[in-house]
Amino acid sequence: MSYQGLIQTYKSYLPVNEKTPLLTLKEGNTPLIRAENLSEELGLDLYFKYEGLNPTGSFKDRGMVMAVAKAIEEGSRTIMCASTGNTSAAAAAYAARAGLNCIVLIPNNNIALGKLAQAMIYGAKVIAIEGNFDRALEIVREITAKHPITLVNSVNPYRIEGQKTAAFEVVDQLGKAPDVLAIPVGNAGNISAYWKGFKEYHEAGKASSLPKMVGFEAEGAMAIVKGEPILEPETIATAIRIGNPASWKTAVAAAEESGGQINYVTDDEILTAYRMIASREGVFAEPASAASVAGVLKLKREGYFKGGESVVCVLTGNGLKDPNVALKTVNADPLIVPDTEAAVMEAIGKLEEAGV
Amino acid sequence: MSYQGLIQTYKSYLPVNEKTPLLTLKEGNTPLIRAENLSEELGLDLYFKYEGLNPTGSFKDRGMVMAVAKAIEEGSRTIMCASTGNTSAAAAAYAARAGLNCIVLIPNNNIALGKLAQAMIYGAKVIAIEGNFDRALEIVREITAKHPITLVNSVNPYRIEGQKTAAFEVVDQLGKAPDVLAIPVGNAGNISAYWKGFKEYHEAGKASSLPKMVGFEAEGAMAIVKGEPILEPETIATAIRIGNPASWKTAVAAAEESGGQINYVTDDEILTAYRMIASREGVFAEPASAASVAGVLKLKREGYFKGGESVVCVLTGNGLKDPNVALKTVNADPLIVPDTEAAVMEAIGKLEEAGV
Repeated sequence: MSYQGLIQTYKSYLPVNEKTPLLTLKEGNTPLIRAENLSEELGLDLYFKYEGLNPTGSFKDRGMVMAVAKAIEEGSRTIMCASTGNTSAAAAAYAARAGLNCIVLIPNNNIALGKLAQAMIYGAKVIAIEGNFDRALEIVREITAKHPITLVNSVNPYRIEGQKTAAFEVVDQLGKAPDVLAIPVGNAGNISAYWKGFKEYHEAGKASSLPKMVGFEAEGAMAIVKGEPILEPETIATAIRIGNPASWKTAVAAAEESGGQINYVTDDEILTAYRMIASREGVFAEPASAASVAGVLKLKREGYFKGGESVVCVLTGNGLKDPNVALKTVNADPLIVPDTEAAVMEAIGKLEEAGV
Repeated sequence: MSYQGLIQTYKSYLPVNEKTPLLTLKEGNTPLIRAENLSEELGLDLYFKYEGLNPTGSFKDRGMVMAVAKAIEEGSRTIMCASTGNTSAAAAAYAARAGLNCIVLIPNNNIALGKLAQAMIYGAKVIAIEGNFDRALEIVREITAKHPITLVNSVNPYRIEGQKTAAFEVVDQLGKAPDVLAIPVGNAGNISAYWKGFKEYHEAGKASSLPKMVGFEAEGAMAIVKGEPILEPETIATAIRIGNPASWKTAVAAAEESGGQINYVTDDEILTAYRMIASREGVFAEPASAASVAGVLKLKREGYFKGGESVVCVLTGNGLKDPNVALKTVNADPLIVPDTEAAVMEAIGKLEEAGV
């Protein structure tokens, strides 16, 4: 039987009734890729849950399909969010699919059109306000409280419901829950969702154990690690550049209940992992995604592992989402040589010597 | 059972023996998405085979995993191709995965680093020659003929073998062969591969019928339609900007044997379809991918369909591969308004009136 999408596949675990439309872009069903080279090097049984292969290129599709399906069920004709990145792309895609309007509110400072182009091509209506992101979110909450417009930012409770299905898939694909689940932490909704998913699958008898949940913030945005909001969060991993995580408490609970931890990694560690995932395993993920792998490398250095543990690193988004970081990261000046076989062979030899 | 990748899944149909490594990045298994809105509008049962959700973002992964697996089997340590786009990304990713070297040769005119960044982050060694693309391919052929380096451009016969698995998936997902398979035509390898795949599955009793194969070149690169090579092909759909298709004869044979056709679409038609796929169905594909949908729209206008036919449009690559076209396509100046609820509501009203 062909894959029918996330809501159909996991409906018995989701807030779905006979009125909920089976909306789908065939989100989910993303690959669990064994990191063959890094597993050997680290003495672990290491996997990537590659969420970049969701329809809009990030894990946000899982929560958004559920949120938009419920919006339709409730008779809404318009959805709205404050977002400059993956959330707006997911919202816009499902709104297009469902024939709803999608309004995206952004701060007018520092508009990166590249990040917004995806939402706009799906047909989202983008409005910039003379204010910051927090103010944009406030206005979205005010408007959606008063008008028949559905809020689809992460405070929408259906987002977490959809996102928890990624934990189901990990268990289904691995045949068990992993020993450790490593995940980037920004707004902290995803670690909360995975933990909810693992617990529900465990209670349903689908997994006999639960993983330790280890989450990694970026150093410049490590609110949970520091125990206080960061007023001006800064990291190259823009998807987790969040100073006051919405799901702070549930993330801490996930780490504590599971015997895991919330830790942090530096931008340098993130970029090293980002290159390593691509050049050693052939997987191209968003910089923020690499925080999970950077975190596992850090734990390995600190003697966290006995050896042989099964570890799943969540790669939350597709590297194609952020081509500028890729461009800055690679040595972008190719050798230029005459158009002869000899010149090209000489160049190959030079590159091999240089270890480029 | 969890999906084990293309070679494992379809090995009985592939040139695989006990020495062939089961190399995989979990390529294939891409979604078949029913175009709910366009189906209704066109009176067809229309689907997208969304190949943009392959690991490197295009259908090239299917052929490349097979070509690289065979290179490993034959003892090769280095693969090489001439490419500035999707082929180089796929080659570099599988080389990284397999621990091989990957050399990418490009012409030094008009180097679009954005397109190359993906190959470079996977670790490919890029060399630019003082010559054009044809000369780069010639040098690759010369070098790979003399040295223990494997050519992975489309003349590598294993590429077509891997690519044909997409036809198997279409049949497995749809439960039958579609009435019509619509596909962009550039180098013409993919239409040839699909036709091979449909025929083999039909012979194996997996499908009781065969589709009509309808292929679409871009007007500025319509060598097959014109019956002669195009010296300076030009189209916004860079992935099919090819003036002398390598698989010309097999593509024509696929169209003729199946009762289909090779036709063409204009850049305007491609861009219209590109926006329509995103804004009506929530699927973001490369501009070249939209040639298949543009072609179906053209055939519909010309009265080709009786109505109700099942039609699968192959969307060959991910829209995130070419963010610049998206940026140029959308109205990229968001409305800027004061940070009040009233101002935002007024802006929403204006956008709705303007039908943006």
